[in-house]
Amino acid sequence: MSVTLVLGGARSGKSAFAQAAAEIVAKARGATPVMIVTAQAFDTEMEERIARHQVDRGDAWTTLEAPMDLVAALRGLPPGAVAVVDCLTLWLTNLMLAECDLSSAATRLVDAIVEFDGELWLVSNEVGWGVVPDNALARRFRDEAGRLHQALARAADAVHLVAAGLSLRMK
Amino acid sequence: MSVTLVLGGARSGKSAFAQAAAEIVAKARGATPVMIVTAQAFDTEMEERIARHQVDRGDAWTTLEAPMDLVAALRGLPPGAVAVVDCLTLWLTNLMLAECDLSSAATRLVDAIVEFDGELWLVSNEVGWGVVPDNALARRFRDEAGRLHQALARAADAVHLVAAGLSLRMK
Amino acid sequence: MSVTLVLGGARSGKSAFAQAAAEIVAKARGATPVMIVTAQAFDTEMEERIARHQVDRGDAWTTLEAPMDLVAALRGLPPGAVAVVDCLTLWLTNLMLAECDLSSAATRLVDAIVEFDGELWLVSNEVGWGVVPDNALARRFRDEAGRLHQALARAADAVHLVAAGLSLRMK
Repeated sequence: MSVTLVLGGARSGKSAFAQAAAEIVAKARGATPVMIVTAQAFDTEMEERIARHQVDRGDAWTTLEAPMDLVAALRGLPPGAVAVVDCLTLWLTNLMLAECDLSSAATRLVDAIVEFDGELWLVSNEVGWGVVPDNALARRFRDEAGRLHQALARAADAVHLVAAGLSLRMK
Repeated sequence: MSVTLVLGGARSGKSAFAQAAAEIVAKARGATPVMIVTAQAFDTEMEERIARHQVDRGDAWTTLEAPMDLVAALRGLPPGAVAVVDCLTLWLTNLMLAECDLSSAATRLVDAIVEFDGELWLVSNEVGWGVVPDNALARRFRDEAGRLHQALARAADAVHLVAAGLSLRMK
Repeated sequence: MSVTLVLGGARSGKSAFAQAAAEIVAKARGATPVMIVTAQAFDTEMEERIARHQVDRGDAWTTLEAPMDLVAALRGLPPGAVAVVDCLTLWLTNLMLAECDLSSAATRLVDAIVEFDGELWLVSNEVGWGVVPDNALARRFRDEAGRLHQALARAADAVHLVAAGLSLRMK
């Protein structure tokens, strides 16, 4: 049983990398992979993005929506499940907008991942490689995302950094 | 004959990396390397940047300007040419400002690269590692740049990620 | 005697990486490691950030503040010192706000590093991997940061790129 963190920039191919890896493992086990989607459609742009992702995946996947309670979604999966969470930066955005306690949410997610009995890929955006953002909320967001990535990387069995559809294994 | 994609952040040394590699190959062949510039000077800041790049290169290079029709520039080169395209993110910007069909332009560029009979380095900026930009045009731009990089990386023989003048080979 | 450049995004764990490395070397030598802090607290947000960093370090470190004159701070250390500079992007920001000549400051810093008689880690933020910033000052800042990183990487014995608390050795 293993957990893989897949990091990368926007449109880096990180989701496709995680999906391809999960599909190979799921096929070998005769299992149906589970896509745990954290996106919430607040506007047309986001609706189109979610719909495009679903079309890209096809019918071979089961889809769960978990914009906030990712821990419950992970704990609800049967032993030996093959799952992808896409993506953690949107989950973090949802928690921030709902004014949740991000530190305790991160701790609970790490606990759920350590206990996870299956094969799990966690997809998340690198967001801290640009100039310091103008507004305080964006600065706080990238701080929280960075801390979350560090905590997850410590707990994960493998960490990949993806650019242009290619991965660098960092752990 | 080979195609190398050179990715990196702003001022990462990616252009210098591509130029140095092309100069070595050109020298070995007794050829004059060709710099295909995609920049368009809309303002003084950009004019100065283009001029500084030309001074940095010296007289050992032939320079072609191809802000839009990169495919024609590549097809116009003689067999065995040694060339650098610098850079694809500016080319993409030019196409977006001219409201071109980016998807078909990317497809045609990939086709031209696959057919290219020579040694080619393609320089492009990573732009998707920061927080989500405020404006929709910037978000669309980084999506298109990410897709283009993935398509080019699939077609390229080698892909390098450059930071602080140092390269990580990803393919 | 060696100099290591540690690059990474915001909250990537680059400071912790440099500190952990310095602590190991300092312990082996029976030396007290020196933290050279470049941050200046202009507001509450920055004060809290500096205070959190100091708490994270504990009492095992000596702290020097050098928001501007980093060269004097480095030259003032005794031979064989074990030191971390955190971070160079803040130092660059301080110089820009004070309208210093950045090019000559960078040259003098590189000279001081080459002459440094001890073990030194230089921490700096990658800032050029996002979309082009809206304002000219931010664009100039990322150009200067990129140039500085290239110059330091040439002079350094080792260069690490850190993401999610994990490092990729680039040199």
